[in-house]
Amino acid sequence: MRIDLNCDLGESFGAYKIGMDEEVIPHITSANIACGFHAGDPEVMARTVRLCREYGVCAGAHPGYRDLQGFGRRQLQVAPETVKCEILYQVGALRAFCDSVGIPLTHVKPHGALYNQAAKSYELALAICEGIWAANPQLAIMAMSGSCMVKAAQDCGLPYISEVFADRAYQADGTLVPRSREGAMITDEDEAIRRVVRMAREGTVTAITGEEVSVQADSVCVHGDGAKALAFVRKIRSALEAEGIAVAAPCRV
Amino acid sequence: MRIDLNCDLGESFGAYKIGMDEEVIPHITSANIACGFHAGDPEVMARTVRLCREYGVCAGAHPGYRDLQGFGRRQLQVAPETVKCEILYQVGALRAFCDSVGIPLTHVKPHGALYNQAAKSYELALAICEGIWAANPQLAIMAMSGSCMVKAAQDCGLPYISEVFADRAYQADGTLVPRSREGAMITDEDEAIRRVVRMAREGTVTAITGEEVSVQADSVCVHGDGAKALAFVRKIRSALEAEGIAVAAPCRV
Amino acid sequence: MRIDLNCDLGESFGAYKIGMDEEVIPHITSANIACGFHAGDPEVMARTVRLCREYGVCAGAHPGYRDLQGFGRRQLQVAPETVKCEILYQVGALRAFCDSVGIPLTHVKPHGALYNQAAKSYELALAICEGIWAANPQLAIMAMSGSCMVKAAQDCGLPYISEVFADRAYQADGTLVPRSREGAMITDEDEAIRRVVRMAREGTVTAITGEEVSVQADSVCVHGDGAKALAFVRKIRSALEAEGIAVAAPCRV
Amino acid sequence: MRIDLNCDLGESFGAYKIGMDEEVIPHITSANIACGFHAGDPEVMARTVRLCREYGVCAGAHPGYRDLQGFGRRQLQVAPETVKCEILYQVGALRAFCDSVGIPLTHVKPHGALYNQAAKSYELALAICEGIWAANPQLAIMAMSGSCMVKAAQDCGLPYISEVFADRAYQADGTLVPRSREGAMITDEDEAIRRVVRMAREGTVTAITGEEVSVQADSVCVHGDGAKALAFVRKIRSALEAEGIAVAAPCRV
Repeated sequence: MRIDLNCDLGESFGAYKIGMDEEVIPHITSANIACGFHAGDPEVMARTVRLCREYGVCAGAHPGYRDLQGFGRRQLQVAPETVKCEILYQVGALRAFCDSVGIPLTHVKPHGALYNQAAKSYELALAICEGIWAANPQLAIMAMSGSCMVKAAQDCGLPYISEVFADRAYQADGTLVPRSREGAMITDEDEAIRRVVRMAREGTVTAITGEEVSVQADSVCVHGDGAKALAFVRKIRSALEAEGIAVAAPCRV
Repeated sequence: MRIDLNCDLGESFGAYKIGMDEEVIPHITSANIACGFHAGDPEVMARTVRLCREYGVCAGAHPGYRDLQGFGRRQLQVAPETVKCEILYQVGALRAFCDSVGIPLTHVKPHGALYNQAAKSYELALAICEGIWAANPQLAIMAMSGSCMVKAAQDCGLPYISEVFADRAYQADGTLVPRSREGAMITDEDEAIRRVVRMAREGTVTAITGEEVSVQADSVCVHGDGAKALAFVRKIRSALEAEGIAVAAPCRV
Repeated sequence: MRIDLNCDLGESFGAYKIGMDEEVIPHITSANIACGFHAGDPEVMARTVRLCREYGVCAGAHPGYRDLQGFGRRQLQVAPETVKCEILYQVGALRAFCDSVGIPLTHVKPHGALYNQAAKSYELALAICEGIWAANPQLAIMAMSGSCMVKAAQDCGLPYISEVFADRAYQADGTLVPRSREGAMITDEDEAIRRVVRMAREGTVTAITGEEVSVQADSVCVHGDGAKALAFVRKIRSALEAEGIAVAAPCRV
Repeated sequence: MRIDLNCDLGESFGAYKIGMDEEVIPHITSANIACGFHAGDPEVMARTVRLCREYGVCAGAHPGYRDLQGFGRRQLQVAPETVKCEILYQVGALRAFCDSVGIPLTHVKPHGALYNQAAKSYELALAICEGIWAANPQLAIMAMSGSCMVKAAQDCGLPYISEVFADRAYQADGTLVPRSREGAMITDEDEAIRRVVRMAREGTVTAITGEEVSVQADSVCVHGDGAKALAFVRKIRSALEAEGIAVAAPCRV
């Protein structure tokens, strides 16, 4: 019984600082590192892979749309061939930083709008998988449980890490309740933790409409962008360990 | 007796086209491929490495300052640590494209203002060499003959390709006559070719003030940005071969 | 009986050249000038407003999404408040260049994906109109005939210039046949011209399904991005004048 | 006896926040608002001009080099004609936001490396003044006391606001001691305040080498990027007022 705790890191840019990377990294097992398109820059990438090495945290690429202004959170209509090339570019850039400090690049998690659009679009998911495959067919994609990204990875023979969310409600079909709908966010921390424990142990979550939904909980996404988020990371880690669920990266083979 | 013909390729960006890559590539032996900072984008990089594979041309990275507006030609004061990281980033990105089509990344040539500033600044040249070294200590830097870049490469133990210019006058100390000075450009094509032949054969060029200057002519820079430039590439290649000088990449081991 | 010929100009960026601005400007009556977000830069804007003054052509702002890589042609999900501010920013910037050469800024035509999305989204169209209004309530928006942009302009009390297309087929509801559908493009130049003459004279166009559709043809969009496009501009202008339809800007009061 | 307190505001960008604009604005009399090249974006500009209106603070444009990565602090070699156009563009954009909330644009202060380079280069200073003049010959430039910018403004007939620094040591020729030299920064707050009081009252400051230097103290630059900076703004304002020196914008006519 094990689960990975993943968090987005390395999102600062030039004089602009975002996140509490030094504070959150001791508590997580996988880092998704911004690659300079929606956030991050080469120096930040260098610093972040050194942090990963220091704390023994898996380093993954976190490629996004080329939209610094929108932090990669705005839907953008990008041709699949372009997406494939932009994934390969960003993954290649981050891999060079990993190589330079002697740690492996373990996974790739698409960011923001790219992640959300690819969860629902098989064509986009396939373009992402092809970009990762072009970089290295052994690289795992971190993908939303039950989404088009998992399907595309399976079709490509690409390893995948199935991700679940602690703070989001699920629909009966295994997709997330859109943020715009009431009840989309699980705001009670204890309930969020109970749900993650159950997802890790039983592979099941209760949908907002009451059905039991199967999920594959290889990794759970946490945040490091504030004191409250940071406190939750410590809390969920302790709770998982107290329940006998090992917190460990799935990709450290 | 051999010399490499190198040319900057892959400088288009999105809807913007620059250069005649398809026309010039049959005649050169090394391509310096823009990496997205001063020119180029991921799709252009993908196309350009495929061209290199098709024509058996050595693929090199052509990293520049992050200045698309100025095409990397404007001096920018960048801290050495930043330069090192930006080189590593760009080289890593291009290497991923080379890997994806099964060709080696053979060399790195800094672009524009970065090249010119590093020719005169040992500190900047060293930062570039450290970035290349971090990517791969076996990668060659393409550097102006007799410049600080050659010195930095030697000090780092980094392989280097010493570059000369067909269309530029030299000063007695082996540096180029600044473009702003009269006589800086060699506009007579036949004279330009005679000078290159002599540089390749004897390792010597006559300075603008009459002295004989030693140069190491591993590679000569040509341009592919117009019909006239393209005609010159064909002409210099024929002339070199007629003189018994092999036109071949130095890095194809 | 009159119609305006409008064309997108000023789309070059730094070392990158697009378009044949000098060649096309003698033949048109309104220019839509890129404002630096999807294309154009401050020097190009300065040159383009001088061209407009020289040829007595109406100078309009052509704001687009902040997407140089995609040339503003990719759909992007931007919040209405952001759109409003980005319109105001771009219009203000171009107005300064118009002021500096003593010509009025006459209109604003949204570019590419922004234009296409706003044609169908009243909310987005309203945000654009509010941005223009914030700059100057007397500025006209150039908007697709019968679209949400026209409706939003009317609701705001903003002047508008209703635009038709020579090279596009119409649907029965007055919208354009999507480019992906067969017959979307009118490729026969003579037919295209006949359709424009009829739109100008009768305010009517025949839909792809045979119905007669009402359009308001204040301005027709032409292109200046190649020899063929340029020849068509001359041809349509001559044809219109031969038919007794004055080619004149609607906004020159 | 009066002096203006000016502060850089509106430096956030998209998801990236910098500065404590709401906290500092009640204490200053002039705001220099970033215009989107080195910092700031259209929405931030809209928010910042509304803050200026609310607090009766003079709104100025704060144009910089197109270098978001370097926050406009890195020297960049830009042609004077380009600088002129980039100033006009940024000033025009900000003016549109001022107009839209019904406040005047009062001044223009070049940012960072552009300010520092123009202080020493008359050619660059002149290009900046020409850009401002093109926007509006009545707009004041905020310029370092005794610098090339003041000279260029005088030669152009452009109004200027002469700026002094509380936290920097001066050389005998009236220029600032470079930050790299010992003693460049005045770290004792009380000494800094005493120096400003004397500059305001007597137009004199003691150089690091002991000489008395004449300065014209129309405005003093303060910072709002942290709790310490904010506390200093309150302190210097109280001290100035206690000394009978009015804290007031020079441009509020």
